[in-house]
Amino acid sequence: MYAFTSSFQQPQGSPIRELFKYLGEPGMISFAGGYPASDLFDVDGLRLAMEQAYAVPAQCLQYGPTDGLAILKHQIVELMGQRGAACTVDNVVVTTGSQQGLDLLLRILIESGDVVLTEEPAYPATLQALRLQRARIVAIPTDAHGIQIDKLSIMLESGACGRPKLLYTVPTFANPTGATLSSERRRALLALAVKYRFVVVEDDPYRDLRFTGDPVPSLLAEARLVDGARDWVVHFASLSKIVSPGLRVGWMIGPHEIIRRCVIAKQTVDLCSSPWMQAVAARYLAAGALEQHLPKITAAYGLKCHQLCSDLREQLGDAIEFHPPDGGLFVWARLQGVDTSDMLHKAVEQKVMYVPGKAFYANNADSAALRLSFAAPDSNAITEGVRRLRYAYEMM
Amino acid sequence: MYAFTSSFQQPQGSPIRELFKYLGEPGMISFAGGYPASDLFDVDGLRLAMEQAYAVPAQCLQYGPTDGLAILKHQIVELMGQRGAACTVDNVVVTTGSQQGLDLLLRILIESGDVVLTEEPAYPATLQALRLQRARIVAIPTDAHGIQIDKLSIMLESGACGRPKLLYTVPTFANPTGATLSSERRRALLALAVKYRFVVVEDDPYRDLRFTGDPVPSLLAEARLVDGARDWVVHFASLSKIVSPGLRVGWMIGPHEIIRRCVIAKQTVDLCSSPWMQAVAARYLAAGALEQHLPKITAAYGLKCHQLCSDLREQLGDAIEFHPPDGGLFVWARLQGVDTSDMLHKAVEQKVMYVPGKAFYANNADSAALRLSFAAPDSNAITEGVRRLRYAYEMM
Repeated sequence: MYAFTSSFQQPQGSPIRELFKYLGEPGMISFAGGYPASDLFDVDGLRLAMEQAYAVPAQCLQYGPTDGLAILKHQIVELMGQRGAACTVDNVVVTTGSQQGLDLLLRILIESGDVVLTEEPAYPATLQALRLQRARIVAIPTDAHGIQIDKLSIMLESGACGRPKLLYTVPTFANPTGATLSSERRRALLALAVKYRFVVVEDDPYRDLRFTGDPVPSLLAEARLVDGARDWVVHFASLSKIVSPGLRVGWMIGPHEIIRRCVIAKQTVDLCSSPWMQAVAARYLAAGALEQHLPKITAAYGLKCHQLCSDLREQLGDAIEFHPPDGGLFVWARLQGVDTSDMLHKAVEQKVMYVPGKAFYANNADSAALRLSFAAPDSNAITEGVRRLRYAYEMM
Repeated sequence: MYAFTSSFQQPQGSPIRELFKYLGEPGMISFAGGYPASDLFDVDGLRLAMEQAYAVPAQCLQYGPTDGLAILKHQIVELMGQRGAACTVDNVVVTTGSQQGLDLLLRILIESGDVVLTEEPAYPATLQALRLQRARIVAIPTDAHGIQIDKLSIMLESGACGRPKLLYTVPTFANPTGATLSSERRRALLALAVKYRFVVVEDDPYRDLRFTGDPVPSLLAEARLVDGARDWVVHFASLSKIVSPGLRVGWMIGPHEIIRRCVIAKQTVDLCSSPWMQAVAARYLAAGALEQHLPKITAAYGLKCHQLCSDLREQLGDAIEFHPPDGGLFVWARLQGVDTSDMLHKAVEQKVMYVPGKAFYANNADSAALRLSFAAPDSNAITEGVRRLRYAYEMM
């Protein structure tokens, strides 16, 4: 009856979101979410920030600038400086979550049929955004250290991946693999971006959730060390995983030409992100509450991750393969000899959930893979959940 | 250096937003804004709603459903029922301002080159959104009662406007004209939509800001009276003009097939609108604060509008033509014998601002037209502003 656009004639919902119907079932233990833990939110710190922000009600209640409230942009510039990635307010646009940043960027850069490179496996909402923009997705293989740069280099040189306009990566504690790209690979990736003239999109929401090992500078920070690279890096960051997703406050940093066009696109898309939420975020950051609260979050996630990894080893032994991550929210694993999409039905019967690997591939999925998030369940639930996972596995 | 998409090779910012650089000048009186008056916000009522919402912190701080928080959707269904437009939660999606609703709808419905009808003059951000989606815009003439349905009918029958997929209108207190479409025209428009199978987009943010005359039912409400029309109406509403734009809370009501696809698009665009802001909006509506506060706002706007209209008559006499609106934020006028875009420079020198008519036309502008908003300036500023407008006019 309606003539929907080609992307929406048979629209695909996110395969992860479709699992949500099971989440409400009583007694369900979920490793499926990508949500941060609700019981780790800094409720008091955010209440204080909310009260401070509302001391200037008109700033909260009126429309704000499309590129973001000045008070928040200044905090962002400061935070990025602390992270080793100096930038100016002109390179920053505040977005309604970093998800919006990707949408804006694709709309100004990607025409139907343009080649976009993604790490594989990749964040499903990115794959969905690329399909919506009708990009041609070319998957780049990864290992425990992220994108395999040697393979990427060969693909670029041989023309096997066409002339890409953009490469998307979560280089630090990737979703879904938890892998972190090494500094050497980061510099090599930047050099390839300069040589082949494609934009590297660094999606970086998990960086601060490191519970072991030393920080690796972001691609944005590394770009200062690679000639010309600063022109080709667009960096997304967000408060969703380290403060609260309910704020819907993310930001995007990039070359001025790109940022300017994204701001114009944003005028059309939502005029501005909620100034009220931006003001709360600005007060929260200005109070130093993030630095204070972050160690509590990372310590809690570190313990949960450790617990999940030891339970998996104990319950599933050699049947399961994984690399424990140094941070983030996810363990990426392979279960010998099963299709995890098929196994999900057994798992749901056992009242445990995860995301089958298939959700993270543009084309040829590793059917034995699965993503487990340790963020939401508590220690007992993790142990019980892994036990149920073993039952489900044994029933296959 | 970058290969931007065709819509963004020479991106046009909103012509209204470009005026903003003058707004900060000391002593400037602005009739240019489309903002509601900051001094009419219900600061206390919203503070209470904020505190009530934060009594359930996890609901504010965690991700929410893409289609909107259930508590808000129920309030919206109730509000729409009071407005004579019964709907169910399945027909509603909460959006990041109603601006986002239009963006989502265009993305699921409009392919490059598709014909979209708009009233002329029209809201500039809509024209910009249509250009971004590469629609072919066909303008429909309006008069003091909105879209001229007889002319539309002839255009449709003759094929002069191709086969439109969608028609966009602000039928109540239009931006920029302030005009309200009569009930007869509404029903005739709906009958044309059914006959020619195009979606009627009713953008309805100003409805509650009526200061004289009787309410006219929305197209959504009227659709119950026209066979098959409910399948072709998509209705946008918003709290931006009646509560606060800072909430970024709007909503979209439409046929289930359309809403379902918009929700899937929204997953990709921003995952969800801020649940925190949605919870505040829900508490505010549940407390009955909107009904309580609205009479204060409309009374204040009624006085300001009256003041502006009498000052215009007094200062400019026969040189100016306009129809005083029954509600909304805008007076649309024509100044004899001048180009209001040229005159704007003189006006800015006199420290008064308005939006030249040109901003509201897809193609052939009425260069003598201008839009004056009475929302922001107080009574003295309105009088002084109109005096300055006369000086600027006399200098032409």
